[in-house]
Amino acid sequence: MQEIRVFVFYDIPSDRIRNKVGTLCKDYGLERIQFSGFSGLLNRNMREELFLRLEALIGDHEAKVLVFPVCEKDYVQKREIMNVDSGAKDAEDNATYL
Amino acid sequence: MQEIRVFVFYDIPSDRIRNKVGTLCKDYGLERIQFSGFSGLLNRNMREELFLRLEALIGDHEAKVLVFPVCEKDYVQKREIMNVDSGAKDAEDNATYL
Repeated sequence: MQEIRVFVFYDIPSDRIRNKVGTLCKDYGLERIQFSGFSGLLNRNMREELFLRLEALIGDHEAKVLVFPVCEKDYVQKREIMNVDSGAKDAEDNATYL
Repeated sequence: MQEIRVFVFYDIPSDRIRNKVGTLCKDYGLERIQFSGFSGLLNRNMREELFLRLEALIGDHEAKVLVFPVCEKDYVQKREIMNVDSGAKDAEDNATYL
Protein backbone atom coordinates (compact mmCIF):
# COMPACT_ATOMS: atom_id res chain seq x y z
CA MET A 1 0.00 0.00 0.00
CA GLN A 2 1.27 3.42 -0.96
CA GLU A 3 2.97 5.49 1.71
CA ILE A 4 1.94 9.11 1.94
CA ARG A 5 3.33 12.01 3.98
CA VAL A 6 1.45 12.38 7.25
CA PHE A 7 1.47 15.25 9.72
CA VAL A 8 0.48 15.01 13.37
CA PHE A 9 0.10 18.22 15.37
CA TYR A 10 -1.24 18.39 18.90
CA ASP A 11 -2.01 20.59 21.90
CA ILE A 12 -1.96 18.48 25.04
CA PRO A 13 -1.64 20.11 28.48
CA SER A 14 -0.77 16.91 30.37
CA ASP A 15 2.99 16.26 30.27
CA ARG A 16 2.39 12.53 30.74
CA ILE A 17 -0.07 12.18 27.86
CA ARG A 18 1.93 14.50 25.59
CA ASN A 19 5.04 12.43 26.32
CA LYS A 20 3.22 9.23 25.38
CA VAL A 21 1.85 10.78 22.18
CA GLY A 22 5.39 11.73 21.14
CA THR A 23 6.62 8.22 21.86
CA LEU A 24 3.75 6.70 19.89
CA CYS A 25 4.48 8.92 16.88
CA LYS A 26 8.12 7.84 17.03
CA ASP A 27 7.04 4.20 17.24
CA TYR A 28 5.33 4.71 13.89
CA GLY A 29 8.54 6.05 12.41
CA LEU A 30 7.49 9.68 12.40
CA GLU A 31 10.05 12.40 12.99
CA ARG A 32 9.62 15.34 15.34
CA ILE A 33 9.48 18.53 13.28
CA GLN A 34 8.20 20.91 15.93
CA PHE A 35 7.65 20.95 19.69
CA SER A 36 4.25 19.31 19.20
CA GLY A 37 4.44 18.17 15.59
CA PHE A 38 5.57 15.03 13.81
CA SER A 39 5.82 14.07 10.16
CA GLY A 40 6.67 10.96 8.18
CA LEU A 41 5.53 8.44 5.60
CA LEU A 42 2.70 6.03 6.43
CA ASN A 43 0.30 4.03 4.35
CA ARG A 44 -3.41 4.56 4.93
CA ASN A 45 -3.82 1.57 7.22
CA MET A 46 -0.93 2.61 9.45
CA ARG A 47 -2.21 6.17 9.55
CA GLU A 48 -5.64 4.96 10.66
CA GLU A 49 -4.08 2.59 13.20
CA LEU A 50 -1.98 5.42 14.62
CA PHE A 51 -5.04 7.61 14.94
CA LEU A 52 -7.00 4.90 16.76
CA ARG A 53 -4.10 4.39 19.16
CA LEU A 54 -3.92 8.13 19.76
CA GLU A 55 -7.64 8.14 20.57
CA ALA A 56 -7.22 5.21 22.97
CA LEU A 57 -4.19 6.81 24.63
CA ILE A 58 -5.81 10.21 25.08
CA GLY A 59 -9.22 8.99 26.18
CA ASP A 60 -11.01 11.84 27.95
CA HIS A 61 -7.89 13.91 28.58
CA GLU A 62 -7.88 17.46 27.31
CA ALA A 63 -6.28 17.38 23.86
CA LYS A 64 -6.47 18.70 20.34
CA VAL A 65 -4.90 16.37 17.81
CA LEU A 66 -4.83 16.72 14.06
CA VAL A 67 -3.66 13.88 11.80
CA PHE A 68 -3.73 14.42 8.07
CA PRO A 69 -2.06 13.28 4.86
CA VAL A 70 -0.32 15.67 2.48
CA CYS A 71 0.31 14.55 -1.08
CA GLU A 72 3.71 15.09 -2.71
CA LYS A 73 2.29 17.81 -4.95
CA ASP A 74 1.38 19.90 -1.90
CA TYR A 75 4.38 18.89 0.19
CA VAL A 76 6.90 20.24 -2.29
CA GLN A 77 5.20 23.63 -1.98
CA LYS A 78 5.84 23.90 1.75
CA ARG A 79 7.83 26.90 2.93
CA GLU A 80 9.87 26.81 6.10
CA ILE A 81 11.70 29.10 8.47
CA MET A 82 14.26 27.24 10.55
CA ASN A 83 16.12 29.58 12.87
CA VAL A 84 17.35 27.14 15.50
CA ASP A 85 19.75 27.89 18.34
CA SER A 86 22.71 25.55 18.55
CA GLY A 87 21.76 22.71 20.85
CA ALA A 88 18.06 23.42 20.51
CA LYS A 89 17.50 20.50 18.17
CA ASP A 90 18.96 18.09 20.70
CA ALA A 91 16.89 19.67 23.43
CA GLU A 92 13.72 18.76 21.56
CA ASP A 93 14.45 15.12 21.98
CA ASN A 94 15.00 15.67 25.67
CA ALA A 95 12.43 14.02 27.92
CA THR A 96 11.37 17.44 29.20
CA TYR A 97 10.00 18.29 25.79
CA LEU A 98 8.24 15.06 25.00
CA MET B 1 -6.87 32.70 -8.46
CA GLN B 2 -7.93 29.50 -6.74
CA GLU B 3 -7.97 29.45 -2.95
CA ILE B 4 -6.45 26.42 -1.31
CA ARG B 5 -6.37 25.31 2.31
CA VAL B 6 -3.20 26.49 4.04
CA PHE B 7 -1.72 25.42 7.37
CA VAL B 8 0.73 27.47 9.42
CA PHE B 9 2.41 25.80 12.41
CA TYR B 10 5.17 27.36 14.46
CA ASP B 11 7.50 27.03 17.44
CA ILE B 12 8.55 30.48 18.59
CA PRO B 13 10.03 31.03 22.07
CA SER B 14 9.64 34.83 22.08
CA ASP B 15 6.18 35.83 23.33
CA ARG B 16 6.40 39.09 21.41
CA ILE B 17 7.26 37.49 18.07
CA ARG B 18 4.79 34.64 18.56
CA ASN B 19 2.09 37.16 19.38
CA LYS B 20 2.82 39.07 16.16
CA VAL B 21 2.84 35.90 14.08
CA GLY B 22 -0.62 35.04 15.42
CA THR B 23 -1.88 38.50 14.59
CA LEU B 24 -0.42 38.31 11.08
CA CYS B 25 -2.10 34.96 10.45
CA LYS B 26 -5.41 36.45 11.58
CA ASP B 27 -4.86 39.44 9.31
CA TYR B 28 -4.76 36.98 6.42
CA GLY B 29 -8.08 35.52 7.50
CA LEU B 30 -6.64 32.35 8.95
CA GLU B 31 -8.27 30.74 11.97
CA ARG B 32 -6.44 29.50 15.05
CA ILE B 33 -6.80 25.72 15.23
CA GLN B 34 -4.15 24.97 17.83
CA PHE B 35 -2.01 26.90 20.31
CA SER B 36 0.57 27.53 17.56
CA GLY B 37 -1.35 26.54 14.47
CA PHE B 38 -3.57 28.37 12.00
CA SER B 39 -5.54 27.26 8.97
CA GLY B 40 -7.61 28.89 6.25
CA LEU B 41 -8.09 29.45 2.55
CA LEU B 42 -5.56 31.50 0.59
CA ASN B 43 -4.61 31.71 -3.04
CA ARG B 44 -1.02 31.07 -3.98
CA ASN B 45 -0.04 34.75 -4.12
CA MET B 46 -1.47 35.46 -0.70
CA ARG B 47 0.20 32.37 0.74
CA GLU B 48 3.55 33.51 -0.64
CA GLU B 49 2.98 37.06 0.61
CA LEU B 50 2.13 35.76 4.08
CA PHE B 51 5.30 33.68 4.13
CA LEU B 52 7.47 36.64 3.11
CA ARG B 53 5.89 38.76 5.83
CA LEU B 54 6.51 36.00 8.36
CA GLU B 55 10.18 35.91 7.29
CA ALA B 56 10.47 39.68 7.63
CA LEU B 57 8.74 39.67 11.02
CA ILE B 58 10.84 36.86 12.47
CA GLY B 59 14.19 37.98 11.09
CA ASP B 60 16.96 36.32 13.10
CA HIS B 61 14.75 35.37 16.04
CA GLU B 62 14.67 31.73 17.03
CA ALA B 63 11.71 30.16 15.23
CA LYS B 64 10.50 27.16 13.33
CA VAL B 65 7.66 27.95 10.96
CA LEU B 66 5.98 25.67 8.49
CA VAL B 67 3.56 26.98 5.85
CA PHE B 68 2.03 24.51 3.43
CA PRO B 69 -1.03 23.97 1.25
CA VAL B 70 -3.29 20.95 1.59
CA CYS B 71 -5.60 20.05 -1.29
CA GLU B 72 -9.25 19.20 -0.66
CA LYS B 73 -8.61 15.52 -1.43
CA ASP B 74 -6.15 15.31 1.48
CA TYR B 75 -8.03 17.68 3.76
CA VAL B 76 -11.18 15.57 3.82
CA GLN B 77 -9.07 12.69 5.11
CA LYS B 78 -7.94 14.56 8.22
CA ARG B 79 -8.78 12.96 11.56
CA GLU B 80 -9.18 15.02 14.69
CA ILE B 81 -9.42 14.64 18.44
CA MET B 82 -11.03 17.67 20.06
CA ASN B 83 -11.33 17.22 23.81
CA VAL B 84 -11.59 20.81 24.92
CA ASP B 85 -12.38 22.04 28.43
CA SER B 86 -15.21 24.53 28.66
CA GLY B 87 -13.75 27.99 28.29
CA ALA B 88 -10.52 26.70 26.79
CA LYS B 89 -11.49 27.76 23.27
CA ASP B 90 -12.02 31.34 24.43
CA ALA B 91 -8.74 31.22 26.33
CA GLU B 92 -6.89 30.52 23.11
CA ASP B 93 -7.86 33.88 21.79
CA ASN B 94 -6.64 35.47 24.97
CA ALA B 95 -3.61 37.72 24.56
CA THR B 96 -1.65 35.43 26.88
CA TYR B 97 -1.82 32.70 24.30
CA LEU B 98 -1.01 34.74 21.24
